[in-house]
Amino acid sequence: MTDISKLGEFGLIHHLTDNIKIKNESTVKGVGDDCAVLHYPDSEVLVTTDMLMEGVHFDLTYIDLQHLGYKSAMVNISDIFAMNGTPRQLTVSIALSKRFKVEDMEEFYSGLRMACDKWGVDIVGGDTTSSYTGLAISITCIGEARKEDIVYRNGAKDTDLICVTGDLGAAYMGLQLLEREKSVYYQQVDEARKKNDKHALEELKGFQPDFAGKEYLLQRQLQTEARGDIIARFRELNIRPTAMMDISDGLSSELMHICKQSNCGCRIYEKNIPIDYQTAVMAEELNMNVTTCALNGGEDYELLFTVPIGDHEKIQQMDNVKLIGHITRPELGQMLVTRDNQEFELKAQGWNPLSEK
Amino acid sequence: MTDISKLGEFGLIHHLTDNIKIKNESTVKGVGDDCAVLHYPDSEVLVTTDMLMEGVHFDLTYIDLQHLGYKSAMVNISDIFAMNGTPRQLTVSIALSKRFKVEDMEEFYSGLRMACDKWGVDIVGGDTTSSYTGLAISITCIGEARKEDIVYRNGAKDTDLICVTGDLGAAYMGLQLLEREKSVYYQQVDEARKKNDKHALEELKGFQPDFAGKEYLLQRQLQTEARGDIIARFRELNIRPTAMMDISDGLSSELMHICKQSNCGCRIYEKNIPIDYQTAVMAEELNMNVTTCALNGGEDYELLFTVPIGDHEKIQQMDNVKLIGHITRPELGQMLVTRDNQEFELKAQGWNPLSEK
Repeated sequence: MTDISKLGEFGLIHHLTDNIKIKNESTVKGVGDDCAVLHYPDSEVLVTTDMLMEGVHFDLTYIDLQHLGYKSAMVNISDIFAMNGTPRQLTVSIALSKRFKVEDMEEFYSGLRMACDKWGVDIVGGDTTSSYTGLAISITCIGEARKEDIVYRNGAKDTDLICVTGDLGAAYMGLQLLEREKSVYYQQVDEARKKNDKHALEELKGFQPDFAGKEYLLQRQLQTEARGDIIARFRELNIRPTAMMDISDGLSSELMHICKQSNCGCRIYEKNIPIDYQTAVMAEELNMNVTTCALNGGEDYELLFTVPIGDHEKIQQMDNVKLIGHITRPELGQMLVTRDNQEFELKAQGWNPLSEK
Repeated sequence: MTDISKLGEFGLIHHLTDNIKIKNESTVKGVGDDCAVLHYPDSEVLVTTDMLMEGVHFDLTYIDLQHLGYKSAMVNISDIFAMNGTPRQLTVSIALSKRFKVEDMEEFYSGLRMACDKWGVDIVGGDTTSSYTGLAISITCIGEARKEDIVYRNGAKDTDLICVTGDLGAAYMGLQLLEREKSVYYQQVDEARKKNDKHALEELKGFQPDFAGKEYLLQRQLQTEARGDIIARFRELNIRPTAMMDISDGLSSELMHICKQSNCGCRIYEKNIPIDYQTAVMAEELNMNVTTCALNGGEDYELLFTVPIGDHEKIQQMDNVKLIGHITRPELGQMLVTRDNQEFELKAQGWNPLSEK
């Protein structure tokens, strides 16, 4: 492994960005000056930024640096899609503690570049610096959209249909699975240590977590995908949502943002919330309510959007889109209708303190 | 003091950004959606980003959060000026450990906003999140410039004049001063502890560092200013530099970037390097070579630029600009001519390991 001090800051940046090929006409100048230079004469410029901190947003015992690079880029690209835009450029700042080597950064960049290549995004700049402890990542993604295409959070109207893409709660269940296996491993290590069982400790070095039948949950947690396919399909079908955002903090929380900013209420139906079979099985195993997981689990990066009721047929033609309810007048509140027809007010619990129903 | 958990992430963002007034026509939508939306039909978009980590880039025993907010914004604004552009928007991401309170963030934002107000920059977004240890700040600044006005690092030509603004080495000397006073304080605490002298320990709580006669050095370290005044003056005098960058890592290092990217050599004269009286006194006190400090000390955020020799008279009219040398053919190397007419090859030592000459 190569110490980063061997290359220095400029050497490292050069090493990581040297063979980047610019793909977008709007990128005039990428890495290598005080600023990147972009050209957007005919459309609006979209800018989004996100920070990921080791120990808070990721745990390197769960996720390798390549997946982390991929995910870091995807969560930002997802925000551009959530405005109905096209991602074009990205800058990445990383702060590293001494335990990271040049090869670690190569891995991170390979993931980052895979995500960027998937959606035709240019890496145009950034900052590489050191950190006292741990790894900090900050990414800014820039995209474009024609003025008339941009979808904000505040355009939902009474009677609009509420839709989500893919399925919900799986990324959160993937995290639960990883945490469970980690605690199983540490329990076994603790026990072996107490007994001073050196043979068992040696064997535990080859510990294999049990992910059988739950591969989809892991994939959803570790290999985040932004729903650019849905945005492309909107164009083909000539659909322009009235409001949209991506689901990073959980459906409840995001839907309440749309309702608040659009000054409206909503009614969604528990039976319509898309949930994968593996998510349901895992929730059962953990004795959790699967609907709560789907409402409040985060990191799905699916799209939540509203369309006028007249687009009902077009929406039916779309794969991977589920109609979960409709927008109401504000005085009707933000309601969940359960399978047994009870009504509950939605709560924004966010993904962190996911409490049981 | 108010715990941040009391407001939550969205509450905190709302609290800090609620009364922001948009100043620029190019800002279509600021804080509050998945992306900020900008409009740049007639000019190029400049983007720069910088990350600041506690314990690496700043020490909160030296700098308060208001100055830190101000500096964090200014160093990014400085990069836009270094392209001969006008800063317009800024996004800020912060990761905080639990020891930071709502009032701390108010202080940080008040500094950030002072810097933004000074140069008419809109705060259009960002991310507030938690950190396992310490404070991490990432800022992206966006600006604009007409295509024909943009100054890159690669345009310097043989015989061009090399100029710097302000004076150099003072920010670095300010840091030395702060570190000296910190170590004086800890020495006294150590001694009092060894003697178990409770009275002395009590008195040390009121310890006042000795900054007398060195206020300018402190100001240069703690209250960074971006040289937008110089950019405005360029426009008045109809000057367009052939190459430019801001001096964040030290004159030597930056000049070598320009020479490398412009494929040229340079000759600068020790006697012409602008150095403040306080910088010289402090270097003397610390037994350091003041030219080395001016060449390699960082964080001055002055501008280094080259102009065609025909602009000589215009440059003479400018306050706060010093002609320090000229560009040469590449085979002549990158040379420093000392006061006693000796020639030395410039070395890029960066500001960190500032070794003695």
